[in-house]
Amino acid sequence: MAITFEGVLADRSTWTLENCSIAMTMDLIGTRSSMVILREAFYGTTRFDDFTRRTRLTDAIVAARLRDLTEIGLFSKRPYREPGQRTRSEYLLTDKGRELLPAVFALMQWGNKYVQDEEGGPLSLVERGTGEPVIIGPRTASGKNLEPEDLAIVANGDWADPRDS
Amino acid sequence: MAITFEGVLADRSTWTLENCSIAMTMDLIGTRSSMVILREAFYGTTRFDDFTRRTRLTDAIVAARLRDLTEIGLFSKRPYREPGQRTRSEYLLTDKGRELLPAVFALMQWGNKYVQDEEGGPLSLVERGTGEPVIIGPRTASGKNLEPEDLAIVANGDWADPRDS
Repeated sequence: MAITFEGVLADRSTWTLENCSIAMTMDLIGTRSSMVILREAFYGTTRFDDFTRRTRLTDAIVAARLRDLTEIGLFSKRPYREPGQRTRSEYLLTDKGRELLPAVFALMQWGNKYVQDEEGGPLSLVERGTGEPVIIGPRTASGKNLEPEDLAIVANGDWADPRDS
Repeated sequence: MAITFEGVLADRSTWTLENCSIAMTMDLIGTRSSMVILREAFYGTTRFDDFTRRTRLTDAIVAARLRDLTEIGLFSKRPYREPGQRTRSEYLLTDKGRELLPAVFALMQWGNKYVQDEEGGPLSLVERGTGEPVIIGPRTASGKNLEPEDLAIVANGDWADPRDS
């Protein structure tokens, strides 16, 4: 059930890819700690102490990860102050961060099914209100649900010469 | 736009998670090389030499990764033999491997938008035949497309005592 290649890509033996978005994204955020921090952000966590308590990562790792993820634009910092304390920062997901939701919860979907000792895992993603199970999967922009065999890959407009191998 | 927690999870301060499926999945397959090998498998690559040529990973990394991913059940091995050569193995995705498609292509979707120098990246996922752009995102089992704010997390049945913190 391989994905079909169309157009200039059709003969897979004529091209390879230098600037793969999957590899570049993994280079940027593909660590367990980044994914766990992002999970917490989707769960509503914004403060340093809460990130460390809920992720069980060390202070040093959480600090480094929040700094990196803020630097690449997944979080924006906002000051807050509890009575009698110094001003601290909280970390809010930007649009760029929020758009990682499918990537993060596709991992949960797979892990719930295939990695947990007991079928299903501890948490499930459902539709708010109805409780209907949620699937992370491919669909067309107009809303048609797709199976893997319905998918194809095309080259984008500026694909000049795929023969770089 | 945090995801809502329902039921015993509603008060986020009362629980933390030991056996997070996202973290466990990252421990298992959360490396750049695993994701790039999986990408190639979705693109139809099955043979060692093709994996190395198309991923530009070293022979040693590809060998180690194919062995690990086969061991955890993402690939099954099948013997093949070219005329005049010794018998070799090809690597075919199992159902367990195939079900990582949303996770892998959610990374591509995000990387195409946010990591590439030029908007869009080199490759796009489209519907086969129509060429309509494909989105990897959440929907209900019955097919309703969801926004992040439509999502909730519930505890699975055997969630005995969430107060482990």
